[in-house]
Amino acid sequence: VKLSGSASLDSDLKRLLGSGAVLSRSSELYNHDSTELQALSGEPDAVVAPSDSAGLRRLIGWCESHQIPIVPRGGGTGMAGGAVPLDGGIVCSLERMDRVRAFDPEFWRIHVEAGVTTARLRDLARASGLYFPVDPGAAEQSQIGGNTATNAGGPHSFKYGVTRHWVTGLEAVVGGGTELRSGGPTRKDVAGYDLTGLLVGSEGTLGVISSVWLRLIPAPELEIAVIAGYGGIREGVQAILRVYAAGATPATLEFFDPGCIEATRAAFPGSMPHDVSFLVVANVDGTEVAARQAETEIQEVLAPDSVLLRSVADRGSRAQLERWRSGIGFAVAARRGGKVSEDIALPVDRLEEAILGTIRVGDELNLPACSWGHAGDGNVHATFEVDRTVTADLELADAGATRLFELALGLGGTVSGEHGLGWVKRDQFGIRFSKDAQRLQLQIKHAFDPSGVFNPGKKLGTYTSWSPRTPRNPE
Amino acid sequence: VKLSGSASLDSDLKRLLGSGAVLSRSSELYNHDSTELQALSGEPDAVVAPSDSAGLRRLIGWCESHQIPIVPRGGGTGMAGGAVPLDGGIVCSLERMDRVRAFDPEFWRIHVEAGVTTARLRDLARASGLYFPVDPGAAEQSQIGGNTATNAGGPHSFKYGVTRHWVTGLEAVVGGGTELRSGGPTRKDVAGYDLTGLLVGSEGTLGVISSVWLRLIPAPELEIAVIAGYGGIREGVQAILRVYAAGATPATLEFFDPGCIEATRAAFPGSMPHDVSFLVVANVDGTEVAARQAETEIQEVLAPDSVLLRSVADRGSRAQLERWRSGIGFAVAARRGGKVSEDIALPVDRLEEAILGTIRVGDELNLPACSWGHAGDGNVHATFEVDRTVTADLELADAGATRLFELALGLGGTVSGEHGLGWVKRDQFGIRFSKDAQRLQLQIKHAFDPSGVFNPGKKLGTYTSWSPRTPRNPE
Repeated sequence: VKLSGSASLDSDLKRLLGSGAVLSRSSELYNHDSTELQALSGEPDAVVAPSDSAGLRRLIGWCESHQIPIVPRGGGTGMAGGAVPLDGGIVCSLERMDRVRAFDPEFWRIHVEAGVTTARLRDLARASGLYFPVDPGAAEQSQIGGNTATNAGGPHSFKYGVTRHWVTGLEAVVGGGTELRSGGPTRKDVAGYDLTGLLVGSEGTLGVISSVWLRLIPAPELEIAVIAGYGGIREGVQAILRVYAAGATPATLEFFDPGCIEATRAAFPGSMPHDVSFLVVANVDGTEVAARQAETEIQEVLAPDSVLLRSVADRGSRAQLERWRSGIGFAVAARRGGKVSEDIALPVDRLEEAILGTIRVGDELNLPACSWGHAGDGNVHATFEVDRTVTADLELADAGATRLFELALGLGGTVSGEHGLGWVKRDQFGIRFSKDAQRLQLQIKHAFDPSGVFNPGKKLGTYTSWSPRTPRNPE
Repeated sequence: VKLSGSASLDSDLKRLLGSGAVLSRSSELYNHDSTELQALSGEPDAVVAPSDSAGLRRLIGWCESHQIPIVPRGGGTGMAGGAVPLDGGIVCSLERMDRVRAFDPEFWRIHVEAGVTTARLRDLARASGLYFPVDPGAAEQSQIGGNTATNAGGPHSFKYGVTRHWVTGLEAVVGGGTELRSGGPTRKDVAGYDLTGLLVGSEGTLGVISSVWLRLIPAPELEIAVIAGYGGIREGVQAILRVYAAGATPATLEFFDPGCIEATRAAFPGSMPHDVSFLVVANVDGTEVAARQAETEIQEVLAPDSVLLRSVADRGSRAQLERWRSGIGFAVAARRGGKVSEDIALPVDRLEEAILGTIRVGDELNLPACSWGHAGDGNVHATFEVDRTVTADLELADAGATRLFELALGLGGTVSGEHGLGWVKRDQFGIRFSKDAQRLQLQIKHAFDPSGVFNPGKKLGTYTSWSPRTPRNPE
């Protein structure tokens, strides 16, 4: 098989999947994910979008027998380069597998194909009075298959947990081109090892997830955002720790550091006093009565030292706040044309050290640095502003990332709270894990993917059964 | 090495672990678990209780080099024979590893050794205003290591999920006698494959869990049990489904079928009208205000067709109800001297079929049958009353169990909701899972346990790298 869009590759794929499933490989849609802001992109040999599991099985069997790597792709909103075809191969988009296989609102469950977007899933649930609490952002683009493959988190994970907690079963095509079904609509199952949980968060390296069974819960009647601003990092972090100490349980508990505030102050809905340099946002939810009670409690807890304290309950104002929130990455990137965002997590009592450490690393490298994220879970999105056309900037940011990972591990934390290792953190695999933990993971990889075709080079930095060509793009 | 309590075995173990760690192997404490009620017991070659991880590592290294099986043991409250030394080997009790390594109530987390009892953990949490919601029963005996190894559930899993949802990290000694640490106090981590989740529920077949990091949550201010009685199964199951339809979210949603009510009616606290033949108990919790609101809502939902409806809020009355609940197994077993309890789970809309199917199987085999369990999770503890001294009874119950498993799988469910496969359901491994799913699990087993010494013969019915001697006790 000649690669890179050769006539024989195209005709083989069309024969396997139908001509409608073979997309233009020159489309820029499929050569990057959200790491484009740090200049990461690749060039696929082909882009396909199977319309059903049978096609997916044929494709994977063919890739295995021809030793061609397969790069599974959801909405392309990943932050670790997991879906970027850095070394070519066949990008397998799940976008056409977007059927709702079964929706049983009266029993709080749904079975969807991988290509259903997070927004559609949440809207479907909402329309039946139900709720899927995991909202990792970019919900219109991101797909439930990608959310599952990365074990996506997001703000509401503080109260509701990450994607893994909501997946009761899945189907995936694994090595050998066979479809593995693990779990299903039943809510509890301890019969075997947790293969479902293993595939959740495997970043396309163990197989391609084709459908997912999810638990849902009754929708909260009311959600209220409580916004508190402080003059400094210390005061804000103390407020966050008071939430813990008070035993309050908001659905979200987010922080935004001084650099982040500076970059987005003008876009903040409503007025933000100029002495605010650190923001805490806690969403409370529940029944009308419970949410109002929680609002009062959180306001009391956040009040000391605050220079801004207000609540936002109506849908329109909360949507404005959401838009501000989801625009932060772009606003920060806009300052110098790009950003390198890392995603560390640590025990919550080390939060202040992580925030200060991020700024210090930026100072030392002379790169503007800021952070925001899921304070309640100790999950910090530490970010360097870069000019992505300047190689020296990207190299500095790389060095900064390495120091951030050392910082996180030194604080008893981890190098990825919710974005995964993907391509950009693949080297951390060998640093984060002991030799034994590495060996066990590589043996699991080999059991699921004996041919080594599933997303080679990602997540497991030391995995070498597939020998990659020279990457076409610098990291 | 001569086995079976020989002088050389004893002296080897004393040299490895200290004399205080080698317990009397003739003690009946270590030859059975809760499956004793179906006549299951074994005879260990030795019983040891290491006092720390270093000893545990030495023990496991020694077992591997001598090819002697190791049967890890928590509180011995398991329902699947997982901790029973049916084929001899060394029982490794975790009872002396019962230290609280770190407790940070202000950050809602605790790090405990495997031998800490569930009750002690819950009491510690409570004393600091916190809550560990998983309560699989027999809390005074059961240990957190065993809870973790079996991914224990229990009534509160309806709202709060099973053990896996609360474990943020663990230490385990795996093959090679090396200690594996996975996760820790950080609440989110997607750096590698979910080795933590894989060890949770592995029933001692992948290694011995030595310590566990747990998330806790602020304790609910109030818990109220709402009790509703019905004249028949159909009316009761309809009430349970109405809870779903109403979008109510009690912490527990339990059912007790006619046979179960008959066996325990006299012990029920307060009066139970004679026309009650099916009971639903839903515990609601939350802040004082939220719990009272939920109580009213649940009462309204459960009211239609009920012949008994009352709430129990004070601690003493709820404890009485708890004692009745935890005595059900014994009360049912007392009727004929024993019981064989199975633990199936299915989609909640198939609950009535599972309850009726259990009774029908009993009728066909002429064994009294009843069921109770976690209705909200579709988790049914289906039980046959037997005379455990009568071989024919045990054989009939075995046949009944097989039919129950067929029933569960036919309803789209699973052969174990929360008890595991252990020894008693080991044959179900080959039935429940596809060839591919079996192969993957066996490869995982082999990666963690290349010598095959960890609890051989349990959970993975087809695992044969350890060749067991003829079992000393019939199943």
